[in-house]
Amino acid sequence: MNIQRHVPLTDRPLRLAVCGLGCRGTSMLSTLLDMDGVEIRALCERYPDRLEAGSRAVVQAGGAAPLLYDNITVLLSETDADALLLFTSWNNHLGIAVQSMEAGIPVAFEVGGAYSIDECFRLVRTHEKTGVPCMMLENCCYGRTEMTLLRMIRENLFGELVQCRGGYLHDLRDEVRLGRENRHYRFEQYLRRNGELYPTHHMGPILKYLDINRGNRMLTLSSVATKAVGLNDFARTRLEKDADRAPLPFAQGDIVVTTMKCARGELILSTHDTTLPRPYSRGGLVQGTRGIWQEDGNGIYLEGKSVAPHTWDSFDPWLERYEHPLWSEYRSLGVRGGHDGMDYLVLSAFLEGIRYGTTLPVDVYDSATLAALSVLSEQSVALGGTAVPVPDFTSGAWTTPADRPLCRHPATDKYLLDRVCSD
Amino acid sequence: MNIQRHVPLTDRPLRLAVCGLGCRGTSMLSTLLDMDGVEIRALCERYPDRLEAGSRAVVQAGGAAPLLYDNITVLLSETDADALLLFTSWNNHLGIAVQSMEAGIPVAFEVGGAYSIDECFRLVRTHEKTGVPCMMLENCCYGRTEMTLLRMIRENLFGELVQCRGGYLHDLRDEVRLGRENRHYRFEQYLRRNGELYPTHHMGPILKYLDINRGNRMLTLSSVATKAVGLNDFARTRLEKDADRAPLPFAQGDIVVTTMKCARGELILSTHDTTLPRPYSRGGLVQGTRGIWQEDGNGIYLEGKSVAPHTWDSFDPWLERYEHPLWSEYRSLGVRGGHDGMDYLVLSAFLEGIRYGTTLPVDVYDSATLAALSVLSEQSVALGGTAVPVPDFTSGAWTTPADRPLCRHPATDKYLLDRVCSD
Repeated sequence: MNIQRHVPLTDRPLRLAVCGLGCRGTSMLSTLLDMDGVEIRALCERYPDRLEAGSRAVVQAGGAAPLLYDNITVLLSETDADALLLFTSWNNHLGIAVQSMEAGIPVAFEVGGAYSIDECFRLVRTHEKTGVPCMMLENCCYGRTEMTLLRMIRENLFGELVQCRGGYLHDLRDEVRLGRENRHYRFEQYLRRNGELYPTHHMGPILKYLDINRGNRMLTLSSVATKAVGLNDFARTRLEKDADRAPLPFAQGDIVVTTMKCARGELILSTHDTTLPRPYSRGGLVQGTRGIWQEDGNGIYLEGKSVAPHTWDSFDPWLERYEHPLWSEYRSLGVRGGHDGMDYLVLSAFLEGIRYGTTLPVDVYDSATLAALSVLSEQSVALGGTAVPVPDFTSGAWTTPADRPLCRHPATDKYLLDRVCSD
Repeated sequence: MNIQRHVPLTDRPLRLAVCGLGCRGTSMLSTLLDMDGVEIRALCERYPDRLEAGSRAVVQAGGAAPLLYDNITVLLSETDADALLLFTSWNNHLGIAVQSMEAGIPVAFEVGGAYSIDECFRLVRTHEKTGVPCMMLENCCYGRTEMTLLRMIRENLFGELVQCRGGYLHDLRDEVRLGRENRHYRFEQYLRRNGELYPTHHMGPILKYLDINRGNRMLTLSSVATKAVGLNDFARTRLEKDADRAPLPFAQGDIVVTTMKCARGELILSTHDTTLPRPYSRGGLVQGTRGIWQEDGNGIYLEGKSVAPHTWDSFDPWLERYEHPLWSEYRSLGVRGGHDGMDYLVLSAFLEGIRYGTTLPVDVYDSATLAALSVLSEQSVALGGTAVPVPDFTSGAWTTPADRPLCRHPATDKYLLDRVCSD
């Protein structure tokens, strides 16, 4: 459970290996190249076109030409990198992360769900055995709104929390239905799986709001899925080529609703909604004994603090007033990188952890918990919505959060999400 | 299944008996007294103060003094009323409705959940045996927004429906916590039950949107409840008398989330949220393959029809453009009665059905389905969120909706909710 192996690396640039250079990897590489104190030593990718483009990007940014690999096992056996950053498709994050830890190389990987609970436990056990840091790069934990809410929750503005909601509500019909052509992994997933395939962007922040794995945990999960008609209707009415219009047997329901009950009695509701026409939202809601915030409508109501009883206030002034100190500092320096700066911040959080040996803000237990949700949801959907138990990846350590203090190096805990609570 | 006994009563005023004169009954009596062609013949109520106030209201409105009862069995054995209107507390609607049908008196009752599935089947079987009309007065079926949405759904603006959501999101802490003093039945319910206690205001309209009991039905239901902390926190911080501040062992979770899966593959999500501070909402959402409407934020997005891709439009112009013809007519005559006119419309719908012998818009199968939801939800909560089967109260008749045409008297079907579909 303790990070034993890594000593501070403050005297030289961090050497990084990057694996996976599709759309996401290319964007994250570009964010990394914009950072100080970072050197891209190696790139790994199965498609030569992407690999060469990545290499050119590194050189154009003023770096030395990186070593190029098409095989991650070879890269891991040869590299002198201080860490591996993993942006491959969903289906191999956990396996490569395990390989990386076994090779002694700290690893951060993009979001995505697991296929089995065993994969998630293997991640945890490998970390516990090797002591090598491991983190899911859940960028939305670093969203400005999410961090403001975390601060407001820690400062007790919502009272005792009772319910959190979130979702990935994003019309991805183009991306999924045309995935055969553009090498996008969602296509095969939607054909064959049925469950909450993409929960981490809202569940990452919610884990923090509710102290999951640090005083609280999810006990049960149940999921219900609708029929799958959105993608085929889209093809029939919007695509032009006859071949593209043929109906396909998609397994993934258009809407999947998942409820989770926590040990402290809170409820989490997660919605996956990606194959119907709709405006984008992460469907956020935080509710406690003293008030409620809701993303849709941009509203907040805090009893005794809001302008009028039983009436929504705009969240905007609260966002200003309770901005998280990390975000205030970040904005004063100029927001950089993709997704409104969240990518920059989450990468910085991992790199700070590696550099100083501090606790990672999304640790291996959080990462395993997030990855497990897709598996559990598929199981519950298959069982007609029956509740399934959520494993305790901490083996009981969630009950004694005081034994795992968040701030190991108070001088360098800038990116720890809960920093505000010890201010 | 057919209404056999009742012939049109077009030659004289309808004679009504009213039972239950608490807050709701008093308001509904006042709406009835404002209607043409209606005579209040008898009142029944256990508290003499309420009974006398009701009698005075009838006389003040120009009616003859009604007969007064404190016992519904006696009233039913003596009355010459054409129908009974029932506004008592939740716990006795179904039993009295059965008594009324057995006495040959058509009955309409206020919303509320059952305690057992057997009660619901008894309602259905008594109706089938006696042929006496029976209807739950689900007023929100007649809301202007709900009827506009029904018309838009029938005109296929949302495409194939995939998901509907609704809730009763209403801060009732005063009413519940102080219920001991003001004789309000919620208090005892919240102390002892835990489930979706109040689903009908959103589920009534959703039943219509999704053709439940007429081509579709709910197959399974699962519910999860949070801890119960809202009422005691409210007492501790907001009430002044020491006796009122003492914590009480409320069983009812602050938030109860219920999911229902339908035979045609749609998902329904229902939320009960009445013991935390929050603005009022019925949390509506309707989503299909061509678009989505959402109450919170007052937004609609219809692919190819909304102003900008992936962006909410205001629902207001759509509400004008697709207003249900019943509402257009009603507004031109002047909206009357409580709850923005819904009470007037739902009472008119029942009275029209009795007068002309037409199909009731919320028939005995719909009424039993709505009343059963609370029972099923309690069962699922008690089982930790396990899905429970929803009974088919129609005994298979839902599969052949063509055998039960809605419009039996086309000239007098004004209040049938689905009138628009045959226009």
